[in-house]
Amino acid sequence: MGEKITLAEFQRVKLKVARVTAARAHPNADKLLVMEIDLGDSSRQIVAGIRKWRAPEEVVGKLIVVVENLDPAVLRGEKSEGMLLAAQDGDELALLAPDRDVRPGSGIR
Amino acid sequence: MGEKITLAEFQRVKLKVARVTAARAHPNADKLLVMEIDLGDSSRQIVAGIRKWRAPEEVVGKLIVVVENLDPAVLRGEKSEGMLLAAQDGDELALLAPDRDVRPGSGIR
Repeated sequence: MGEKITLAEFQRVKLKVARVTAARAHPNADKLLVMEIDLGDSSRQIVAGIRKWRAPEEVVGKLIVVVENLDPAVLRGEKSEGMLLAAQDGDELALLAPDRDVRPGSGIR
Repeated sequence: MGEKITLAEFQRVKLKVARVTAARAHPNADKLLVMEIDLGDSSRQIVAGIRKWRAPEEVVGKLIVVVENLDPAVLRGEKSEGMLLAAQDGDELALLAPDRDVRPGSGIR
């Protein structure tokens, strides 16, 4: 089971719903997609290792779930300000999504 | 934007896909649902404050997303070993779910 965490620790992680507004293959990393996402009050770029499972055109327009307050990173020259959440089941991948339409920027608890 | 977190901090939070196998109204808290969930290799009970938005019969059979390694809590006499994730948008609530069928217990990254 691994180590337990407190509710306060979990609440330091800011999870939000976002809408993917644009997506493209990373110019020099064949596992990565570069996405522009709408968080309601702001937009930003994130990079995710989902290119094996999703083409850019499949994710545009979708609601996804991101860790909003992760330290920014640069992945092979592309800035990533957040992390998309996905479930892995063997060689299958599922993106996390809200089960109903909610506004981009909606907080998760 | 609030405080940033490191990837290592985020990775301490174990998020998993689970399937709701049974659900009932909490016997003495009108905001709470008590659910039995399947995590693939184990089952457990969680309590969630979603009764205003979802009836027990609406959630049974669904794939949801839970924090698996949260400290257990007892909510008005019912044990909760994990936390369901949901997005709040004003008075609307959306449960987080994988966008494709994956097995209960699938890890989220």
